[in-house]
Amino acid sequence: MAGSTPSLDKIVALLRRLPGIGPRSAQRIALDLLLRKRELMPQLALALQQAHQAIRHCERCNNLCEDALCSICSSGRRDRTILCIVESPADLLAIEDSAAYQGEYFVLMGHLSPLDGIGPDALHLDLLEKRLAEEGLQEVIFATNSTLEGEATAQFVAALVPEGLRVTRIARGIPMGGELEYLDRSTLGRAVQGRAALES
Amino acid sequence: MAGSTPSLDKIVALLRRLPGIGPRSAQRIALDLLLRKRELMPQLALALQQAHQAIRHCERCNNLCEDALCSICSSGRRDRTILCIVESPADLLAIEDSAAYQGEYFVLMGHLSPLDGIGPDALHLDLLEKRLAEEGLQEVIFATNSTLEGEATAQFVAALVPEGLRVTRIARGIPMGGELEYLDRSTLGRAVQGRAALES
Repeated sequence: MAGSTPSLDKIVALLRRLPGIGPRSAQRIALDLLLRKRELMPQLALALQQAHQAIRHCERCNNLCEDALCSICSSGRRDRTILCIVESPADLLAIEDSAAYQGEYFVLMGHLSPLDGIGPDALHLDLLEKRLAEEGLQEVIFATNSTLEGEATAQFVAALVPEGLRVTRIARGIPMGGELEYLDRSTLGRAVQGRAALES
Repeated sequence: MAGSTPSLDKIVALLRRLPGIGPRSAQRIALDLLLRKRELMPQLALALQQAHQAIRHCERCNNLCEDALCSICSSGRRDRTILCIVESPADLLAIEDSAAYQGEYFVLMGHLSPLDGIGPDALHLDLLEKRLAEEGLQEVIFATNSTLEGEATAQFVAALVPEGLRVTRIARGIPMGGELEYLDRSTLGRAVQGRAALES
């Protein structure tokens, strides 16, 4: 565009490919970097290069890591008797953020989606089977998304869990702060079915 | 955070400093890069480095550029008799995007804001005076923001325009598609005052 420069146009074009960033915000970010946060540009460039080179997948749980094992698998303080299966590192981080879970994880890096051509091969199930065979495991929690694909993936993967282990699914129900009046029927139906004893 | 990696944390921390990007979207962008758009990471790193090194200010109009003159000042096809004064490169690009203007620009790179300690020294007025003294100039259009600071800046800078030149301000009025019922009083008052002959 007239008034722009080739380097500026290039940054804007690349930023636009990131999630949640449209043409206006791409331009706003690029100009903010150039005019007000110029010292951030080499820092961000270096961080992107380093992450690109360093980040790979944990050999045990498939989460992102920079060494052979991720920070959770290499921690001595996690409960190895419980394994929580999630679709993505973002889901793992969300559960860690809740501070409600002390067990370990396995990250599928996706979900079954036959329409998109995503089959069981994409879910790193050979690695999962190795983890499921480790001694001491007692419970496998499925924390896949509550979507058609997430439910189907949980059903499919659950069949791989060896006999004798407890298999659970994270609770479906009304979200904290949720008002019944505005909830969809299926969430509400699930919440009634899954009712638990009132905590006193 | 447990489950994350140092390189990932670093990218998220830097992205959060960009405008319009909160902690959730910073993490979403970083994971999207790492898991789905990995090829974009070195490209973005290179683009940031190149822009950081190459982009400077036009010696004539103070807009962003990569050579001595910006793409508008070095173009042979702009009307050099009209000069439009804007606060920022973003404002210049917005006017270019409207395709309604064929003249040249001067970019102040800010506005007067005594409370923030921004005085006339910040507005590159020596460069502006050189441009105003160029032969052939007939009109100076003030296109600073319609804010207190933008209006005060236009008033202040207008005093520098040599006698004999036409000095104008871009129209204030109701925006295209705007409904009178929802407009603020001062915009509506300005629109009535600034009424023009009905186009037939």
